[in-house]
Amino acid sequence: ARPRVGYFYSGKKPIKSVADGMVDMIVANYQSRPVVITENLSVYDAICQLFLEDVGTLFVVDQQSLLTGVVSRKDLLRTSIGRTGLEKIPVHVIMTRMPNVTYCKKEDTLISVAKKMMDSQIDSLPIVQEREHGLEVMGRVTKTNITAAFLSLVEDQDV
Amino acid sequence: ARPRVGYFYSGKKPIKSVADGMVDMIVANYQSRPVVITENLSVYDAICQLFLEDVGTLFVVDQQSLLTGVVSRKDLLRTSIGRTGLEKIPVHVIMTRMPNVTYCKKEDTLISVAKKMMDSQIDSLPIVQEREHGLEVMGRVTKTNITAAFLSLVEDQDV
Repeated sequence: ARPRVGYFYSGKKPIKSVADGMVDMIVANYQSRPVVITENLSVYDAICQLFLEDVGTLFVVDQQSLLTGVVSRKDLLRTSIGRTGLEKIPVHVIMTRMPNVTYCKKEDTLISVAKKMMDSQIDSLPIVQEREHGLEVMGRVTKTNITAAFLSLVEDQDV
Repeated sequence: ARPRVGYFYSGKKPIKSVADGMVDMIVANYQSRPVVITENLSVYDAICQLFLEDVGTLFVVDQQSLLTGVVSRKDLLRTSIGRTGLEKIPVHVIMTRMPNVTYCKKEDTLISVAKKMMDSQIDSLPIVQEREHGLEVMGRVTKTNITAAFLSLVEDQDV
């Protein structure tokens, strides 16, 4: 038999640089649960939902559960300054509408997602899956998830 | 003369693991400009300031420019839902007040700051310097700064 040269099982975990580890980090492993509302929900109810679920961004879907828009804490604050009657304004009037929504897929790297967030100056992206007639919302990834991932890099290395 | 053993200048940058690099990352190198308001500013004007400066958090100071509180987009949204007369409510009524404010110093590591943010579930910290009678606000560090730092780890390594 040919002598086995090269790698042997040492009983230790393989040494891997943090940089290599980062490239392997995919969105699927660092995601949060998405909070989804329908287009005709009022701005008032959207704000309640935001506080109830304690998130910074709500994803808006149509009757077929396909992504039509995104509404952020900032959008909701802008709409609510010094105004009453928020229960009469449907959320689709103030949301950022498709195709202007930045999204990602669960197999995307965390690095590409972090880049998207920095480039578009947003704090949260919907994680979607393509369907025949649009995009279904499967998850949510935020700068909080990125911060947690950043911390996990050090914890994994016991620095 | 004694022969020089050990390290020689190779003309290359020293090879350093990303994990080592992370421990060296201090807040001073990843901070943003703080946006500061006074305690008697109205909630209405605070919201305007928030949009004007495009930040998520405002730091509140007293007459001596010392930190007395913090007010976030979330606090401002909670106060403004379905209400008028926001110009009559001073911001000190709704802010998170010292000593309940989480802060950091410019020589703190980015890792310790990321941990603080995750533990206290906040997106932004004031960077302060101790004065005789309190804390002066010198900067701001946010999850956006952490996300930028996360990206810089990969860019430095050309992965």
